[in-house]
Amino acid sequence: MTKAPDSSRRSEHSRRAILDSALALVGEVGYNKLTIEAIAARAGVGKQTIYRWWPSKAAVLLDASLALSGEAWTDTGWSGFPDTGDLAADLKAVLRATVDEFSDPRYEAPARALTAAGATDPDLSARFTEQLLEPQLALYEARLRAARDAGQLAADADLRLVTEMLVGPLTYRWLLRTAPLTHAFTDALVDSVLAGVGGAGGADGVAKVTVR
Amino acid sequence: MTKAPDSSRRSEHSRRAILDSALALVGEVGYNKLTIEAIAARAGVGKQTIYRWWPSKAAVLLDASLALSGEAWTDTGWSGFPDTGDLAADLKAVLRATVDEFSDPRYEAPARALTAAGATDPDLSARFTEQLLEPQLALYEARLRAARDAGQLAADADLRLVTEMLVGPLTYRWLLRTAPLTHAFTDALVDSVLAGVGGAGGADGVAKVTVR
Repeated sequence: MTKAPDSSRRSEHSRRAILDSALALVGEVGYNKLTIEAIAARAGVGKQTIYRWWPSKAAVLLDASLALSGEAWTDTGWSGFPDTGDLAADLKAVLRATVDEFSDPRYEAPARALTAAGATDPDLSARFTEQLLEPQLALYEARLRAARDAGQLAADADLRLVTEMLVGPLTYRWLLRTAPLTHAFTDALVDSVLAGVGGAGGADGVAKVTVR
Repeated sequence: MTKAPDSSRRSEHSRRAILDSALALVGEVGYNKLTIEAIAARAGVGKQTIYRWWPSKAAVLLDASLALSGEAWTDTGWSGFPDTGDLAADLKAVLRATVDEFSDPRYEAPARALTAAGATDPDLSARFTEQLLEPQLALYEARLRAARDAGQLAADADLRLVTEMLVGPLTYRWLLRTAPLTHAFTDALVDSVLAGVGGAGGADGVAKVTVR
């Protein structure tokens, strides 16, 4: 006889309730007013249960965001970054899904709370970048590497730079609300990143050929 | 006889002391722990003097950032956005200056504090964007419009999109610390935005010609 299965089910149930409560609460009261006490009360657990697993509210929220981010990916039905062979189409699909995610209040509130906290807290920012952001950026880089190998990207393209040319403007417009965050915007962004916006050979339907 | 000149000099002196104190303090204690009381004490004025002019610490910090941002521009010796006729060179010069500004602790601390506060406060964000950000973006757009008129930019280029393709990746890397924020990075960004990163006609010295 062992108690492990029951105990482990109870733990998983508590863990899930704590993460869900943290996400709901941060959307309602914001990061600054979020407390471990309030998360515990909402989740129906004791404060000590939370402190046993996480050192701070930031750590709870980071894990909650990781879980949510995993769900968003699963929701699309993709098992990984799409690779149909058409780089522009794949990038547009992923950026559209990201726009949808950033516009969903369930994601937006914790994402803004974490971004705000990380902006002025280098330690939290480093954890956030390493655990949440880098794995996502690595997926872009892998897809771009395949495109580069297939000759669809400049041979000396800096994959991190190209990745940031895609996610940077999207994140900027989302965070600073400088203009509406739409699918039309991210579609145009992908086309402009690939074709360039400089004079001849720009985005107005003029074909490009290569000469030496 | 009038007391106006003296009184107005005193007011300007107090105003300047308050803005300087707010900038210094936010760098030392962060936005969350910044208080009107502490700003007043450091500036050598009463709390009521601050509340007469500003409704909140966020409003003080916004005005302080506006003043600082004006100084940064003046420091470069430019009277406006540079226009030498060479679009790539002008954009590189401005982005390099922005990298320097973002790396200067005097600017960085208040900029991070305002970005963090604005991320979760839509009202503050709207003021921040309207008063601090939009005037800067408008300078980019004006320079890009001149380039478009001169045929150096695609005829149908979306000037706001191109502006965000430049400042977006820079702001992203600064805020999230995903990689070093260097002049080499912004130089490569400008070249990639103008030429595009897609296959043929990319950034590896291959000439581009236009065909119909």
